[in-house]
Amino acid sequence: MSAGTLVVVGSVALDSIEWPACGPKDDILGGAATFFSVAASYFAKPHLVGVVGADMPEEHLTFLRSRGVDLGGLERIAGGRTFRWKGRYFGEDLCSRESLDTQLGVFADFQPKLPEAWRDADLLFLANIAPELQLDVRQQMRRPKLVAADTMNFWIEGRREALERTLAHVDLLIINDEESRLLAGTSNLVRAAHAIQKLGPANVIIKRGDAGALLFAGHEIFAAPAFPLSDVLDPTGAGDSFAGGLMGHLAQHLSAGGALGPDAIRRALIAGNVVASFSVEGYGVDRLRSLDRAEIDARFRAFRALTNVPEPR
Amino acid sequence: MSAGTLVVVGSVALDSIEWPACGPKDDILGGAATFFSVAASYFAKPHLVGVVGADMPEEHLTFLRSRGVDLGGLERIAGGRTFRWKGRYFGEDLCSRESLDTQLGVFADFQPKLPEAWRDADLLFLANIAPELQLDVRQQMRRPKLVAADTMNFWIEGRREALERTLAHVDLLIINDEESRLLAGTSNLVRAAHAIQKLGPANVIIKRGDAGALLFAGHEIFAAPAFPLSDVLDPTGAGDSFAGGLMGHLAQHLSAGGALGPDAIRRALIAGNVVASFSVEGYGVDRLRSLDRAEIDARFRAFRALTNVPEPR
Repeated sequence: MSAGTLVVVGSVALDSIEWPACGPKDDILGGAATFFSVAASYFAKPHLVGVVGADMPEEHLTFLRSRGVDLGGLERIAGGRTFRWKGRYFGEDLCSRESLDTQLGVFADFQPKLPEAWRDADLLFLANIAPELQLDVRQQMRRPKLVAADTMNFWIEGRREALERTLAHVDLLIINDEESRLLAGTSNLVRAAHAIQKLGPANVIIKRGDAGALLFAGHEIFAAPAFPLSDVLDPTGAGDSFAGGLMGHLAQHLSAGGALGPDAIRRALIAGNVVASFSVEGYGVDRLRSLDRAEIDARFRAFRALTNVPEPR
Repeated sequence: MSAGTLVVVGSVALDSIEWPACGPKDDILGGAATFFSVAASYFAKPHLVGVVGADMPEEHLTFLRSRGVDLGGLERIAGGRTFRWKGRYFGEDLCSRESLDTQLGVFADFQPKLPEAWRDADLLFLANIAPELQLDVRQQMRRPKLVAADTMNFWIEGRREALERTLAHVDLLIINDEESRLLAGTSNLVRAAHAIQKLGPANVIIKRGDAGALLFAGHEIFAAPAFPLSDVLDPTGAGDSFAGGLMGHLAQHLSAGGALGPDAIRRALIAGNVVASFSVEGYGVDRLRSLDRAEIDARFRAFRALTNVPEPR
């Protein structure tokens, strides 16, 4: 494996979504590993471990391959049905979401297997799946340089012990503010992050939607606002696009001979921020289909200008 | 008047507040102009226009004078009662607040009068009072370099026309996110700010509590997170401390011969952020009683480190 190889494990799904400003769209390409991979692909080649059924349209996989995503770890189950999520967004700012239906399909029996050659990868992202599976995948890896993970309320409330066993082997936990509060048992985000660090992850990123993200790295804190947007069309996949941009940027950095220092993680977080900001400007992965690296680099520069605090005089 | 003279018009009050982690405190020093002036006093001499009754303890005024606040515009009404607010905070993060009682007292008939010499001041802050009074004060000024104002839902909903007349003469509106949405009629903050700019203020700052602040200055946006705190004791006065730190910093900058450019406003916003972050770490103005400039400067530097985005490689 070359330096900076990036593996992601998670869902590849078919989503059916309704938005207030737009009629429903059915069976569009979704899933955490999908958004992650496409976002990461602007910086590095993502290696995707997942499962789909016979009903996954070939054009979706063709799109992923066109983005350079290695699908060598994607099982296709003959006669199976792909994981499907149906949901609806509310409000002018799409701040409320209702899940209408979830059909696990082939995802119910998902037993992720890393292709032998991928076990030497440097970077692993464990998207939001059962913590037992996350740990199993983690243990299939030989000497990863950084293991990042996401999780959700469902596992925090229902499988806390398994989740804590997994967190002991995670270097970077990327979760949203409500999840961090639930996991840590405190509503203050600084206290929550420090409590989570004690469970294992030296680095914790708390995502706050349009309020930005906080990175707790050892004793250091990095606060990044979200990129201000006047038109948010679809928040689906924003968190996974963020994680994908971040991990992809780290992968690129490692492959260029860089080390995983604090500056590298800050830059990667901004890259994640930037890709996520594009992602929500289109439905599903649509905006990412046309996005190019020059647009990302321009918004990265705009982000530095947006947050630049002049030196005191 | 020397360059950078700063005038504030607003309430000086006696607050009675209950917090979840602390018994109630009665008749503590409060009011928008109080928090503003004390916060500003770390950078410049604030000139306060307000009104109190016979019941305002002399020790509170002595404290304001000890901070260098010029009380030459503070009327004391013999036999009158000072504006009083009674409220209660809820939740571990004090995110909910209930107003239990408001007694306007001498504030009901408040007709702010600028001392003649103050009419040449460079900087004016119109704290949250009736928009008609704000405009009247604005018109008592001769050639202010920058007029900033706050307002609230009560005036936005009940006195929109008067408020719009006032806003036409305001250079910088400092309001919170919910107020900006109500004033602009849109939930998207970028659109809200641009709509408000069309009402007059070239600069709009939207305060988002622990999610930080957004400055819209012409076409430019500056996003500043809040300083992450693990112990918030009392959010009362946070917004006015923010405005005070900001305007005080601008006053200092003007008095040193500086101009009101974009960098000056960004720096001032961070100064406001920093003083507000100290303010909420104590009850009422308590933390500001012991705060010194060295602590402010250290946290300003910490803020730059907190938000520093390294150059792309």
